[in-house]
Amino acid sequence: MVKESVGISVSKNQDFSEWYTQVVLKAKLADYAPVKGLIVLRPDGYSIWESLKSTFDRKFSQNGIRNGFLPVLIPESLLGKEQKHFAGFNPEVFWVTHSGTNEVGDRLALRPTSETLAYTLYSKWIKSWRDLPLKINFWNTALRAEIKATKPFLRTSEFLWQEGHTVHTSEEEAKQEVLKILEIYKNTVEEELAIPVITGKKSDKEKFVGAVYTTTMESIMPDGKALQMGTSHFLGQNFSIPFEVKFADKDNVEHFAWQTSWGVSWRLIGAMIMVHGDDQGLVLPPKVAPMQVVIVPIYNKQEDEKRIIEKSEEIRQKLEKMNIRVHIDDRNELSPGYKFNDWEMKGVPIRIEIGPKDLENQKVVVAKRYNKEKLDLPLEQIEKIDLILEEIQNKMLQVAKEQSEKFTVEIKDYSELKAKVSQGGFLQAYWCGNQDCEDKIKEETGADIRVIPFDAEDKNGKCIYCDNQSSSKPIFARGY
Amino acid sequence: MVKESVGISVSKNQDFSEWYTQVVLKAKLADYAPVKGLIVLRPDGYSIWESLKSTFDRKFSQNGIRNGFLPVLIPESLLGKEQKHFAGFNPEVFWVTHSGTNEVGDRLALRPTSETLAYTLYSKWIKSWRDLPLKINFWNTALRAEIKATKPFLRTSEFLWQEGHTVHTSEEEAKQEVLKILEIYKNTVEEELAIPVITGKKSDKEKFVGAVYTTTMESIMPDGKALQMGTSHFLGQNFSIPFEVKFADKDNVEHFAWQTSWGVSWRLIGAMIMVHGDDQGLVLPPKVAPMQVVIVPIYNKQEDEKRIIEKSEEIRQKLEKMNIRVHIDDRNELSPGYKFNDWEMKGVPIRIEIGPKDLENQKVVVAKRYNKEKLDLPLEQIEKIDLILEEIQNKMLQVAKEQSEKFTVEIKDYSELKAKVSQGGFLQAYWCGNQDCEDKIKEETGADIRVIPFDAEDKNGKCIYCDNQSSSKPIFARGY
Repeated sequence: MVKESVGISVSKNQDFSEWYTQVVLKAKLADYAPVKGLIVLRPDGYSIWESLKSTFDRKFSQNGIRNGFLPVLIPESLLGKEQKHFAGFNPEVFWVTHSGTNEVGDRLALRPTSETLAYTLYSKWIKSWRDLPLKINFWNTALRAEIKATKPFLRTSEFLWQEGHTVHTSEEEAKQEVLKILEIYKNTVEEELAIPVITGKKSDKEKFVGAVYTTTMESIMPDGKALQMGTSHFLGQNFSIPFEVKFADKDNVEHFAWQTSWGVSWRLIGAMIMVHGDDQGLVLPPKVAPMQVVIVPIYNKQEDEKRIIEKSEEIRQKLEKMNIRVHIDDRNELSPGYKFNDWEMKGVPIRIEIGPKDLENQKVVVAKRYNKEKLDLPLEQIEKIDLILEEIQNKMLQVAKEQSEKFTVEIKDYSELKAKVSQGGFLQAYWCGNQDCEDKIKEETGADIRVIPFDAEDKNGKCIYCDNQSSSKPIFARGY
Repeated sequence: MVKESVGISVSKNQDFSEWYTQVVLKAKLADYAPVKGLIVLRPDGYSIWESLKSTFDRKFSQNGIRNGFLPVLIPESLLGKEQKHFAGFNPEVFWVTHSGTNEVGDRLALRPTSETLAYTLYSKWIKSWRDLPLKINFWNTALRAEIKATKPFLRTSEFLWQEGHTVHTSEEEAKQEVLKILEIYKNTVEEELAIPVITGKKSDKEKFVGAVYTTTMESIMPDGKALQMGTSHFLGQNFSIPFEVKFADKDNVEHFAWQTSWGVSWRLIGAMIMVHGDDQGLVLPPKVAPMQVVIVPIYNKQEDEKRIIEKSEEIRQKLEKMNIRVHIDDRNELSPGYKFNDWEMKGVPIRIEIGPKDLENQKVVVAKRYNKEKLDLPLEQIEKIDLILEEIQNKMLQVAKEQSEKFTVEIKDYSELKAKVSQGGFLQAYWCGNQDCEDKIKEETGADIRVIPFDAEDKNGKCIYCDNQSSSKPIFARGY
């Protein structure tokens, strides 16, 4: 049998971008589709998405949100109904012009996002206050033609996401919903993917086209670039007016409703790869790992095979009963060393090694993927694997938090910003709130305002660009 | 508050087609999208799909099948690689010609089905026998422009489905897989949706374009028309040769692989509506019902309100602990009669009525949706609701089986076929196996060969059309 090259050929520190792509492909998470800018998910990649999906679904459902389905085609006339929104998306839209050999009349857009379609329907469905709040989420894909170089999970022309769209009777309730969702996003990303995030508002320049304001969660990647991890928008009545999303109140007076929309995408998987991966490949947080434990039986002599395989099987069954996702690698033609490398590359959180010596001593060797620590575990304590998985999950978040803190820098003046921007990181500095300064900083340094943290309204400083009184202390960074 | 018209305004027997559409819309399962031929699923409709999805996922997973993701865009050149396949789908394909204002080079098809895309990737992923069997399922949508009148769930230009694609080292194993999947389809539809199906093969004329043969499950609808409920195809090497899906065997010799593909769609929801619904609206089998039990508290006097609501809440909590999906209708401004009609239209399997008299007698009234039976249930036996739900599920399948048997008729000669075809039904008759006869029968009666049941190979009769020796005894019917 020809052995595939399992190793990653570059180091994470030397060539981050190439390292990332190799991990995605060699760990078999995803592959390129025949159309440029599109990717395919292989079962291990999709399984991580399904795991996130089921956590979000549970939390959405507890918050009274239900799922629905929207088709992918939106007529051009409908997409154009909210003008700023249309202008924002128009350059990226894929257009259907024909079905079979027939021309379609009004061109059909492949959904770049579904506000216009959903609200056309909401306007029919909502009659009175009794129908509100209406909270529907859609698990689908969005299509936005990428002109820049594409990157699996981070920048693709079609991506898996969820888009939620809610309607409320009051401005206050809608604003609360925006924050509730952002909180669900934040705790899911931290608890499931072990990635810390900073939450806050986008600047007006960076907000969603059509929103009154956008809240966001941002993370810093190991190359010092910021990644937008998810956004939750307060739409006010910007869509309810053109789309006539109205309700009769208890006193029978008609009002325009207040709306929110929000989404996260498979970009979260990209972040997970970047934050936790190492030179050996992927490192998976146990909660989302398709396989949490791999058992590698080790034997040279034929006579050992049977009892070692039997013991492996016994362990497998015990762990499976505890709902641990476990697999025995019984491939005969491969060496233990080859198998270790293979599973390390795929990021399996725990490897259990079991050989004749271990059997004699009634124990196994447990190897943790994230920090390469090895320990002996007596067979009678095998159910401790559960605790070790939990410990790994917690430690991975802790390590990621330390990394992230190192990257967060207080900036005193503009020259410091200019000096530090190329090293990357979250650079927090005073800003007057004026878009001119924001534009100039972007132009001269390549750094955007990623997020104005919720606690960063601050009138006690001076804008690093114009020296006028500050309104807040946002985080500047170069981003993905 | 303005009351919506909740009732269905036509009878199922009088105008089946209009009845069906009204049920879909008024039970709020689905609605029309702005583009002709496309529909949207509202939460109750999507919840039924999610329930089916989770059952299929569990069974697929037990059978070693994992999920993946494929993008919606396929280059024209790729779609055309298997020529019969392309010719079959070409007239229905939606074509993307532009992204933004730029023309795309090779036109991009919106996926009508993903064989060509999946197998391009499989050809890269499969190297040796070690990689086989490869079994991946994709939950996505297919897009096929419908020229005929569209009908929610039954004929739409985009539909939710799953498509599975497996690859095997041997012909025999692939053929077994085709049947295993068909069996999963059959028992899921019968056990979850309470709809009986007949399984067997399609004729060559009716098989999937590109397959060696197609197996199918068919059901008869209450209007006498047949509905294809799902298909599982043996592809042989028809795709593995043009797409070069090859593997090195243990002796290191390269072979073309053997393949299958299979799918069911939301059409199953359409069948469920047609088979079980009645003049009052939808009737849901308990297993897939988004809400299984609705509690309607009944009181006139203010003094009764508190204790009746309290008891309702107590019952709700008990049932919820048993994992029953239950809801209390506490809308104050609506009468009990209005609520009864409303929930009957939505097909909720069990209604629990609780009024002051019931409370005095320590019991509730249980009303079954499917047969309108009412019974008194002592409060202390409230956990029996679980058994009643189970009984309803079983009885609904039994009733549907009886309906289906009534519709299945043995046909002796062609004149009988011609006489009976307009009444509808599964008409079983001898056939020589020749496509000319099949074509003529279709032309003269409108009836297709829906399925050649697995036990219906039969050389002991004479073809009803040409009088030559029969090869089988297929089921003819007009279909959807």
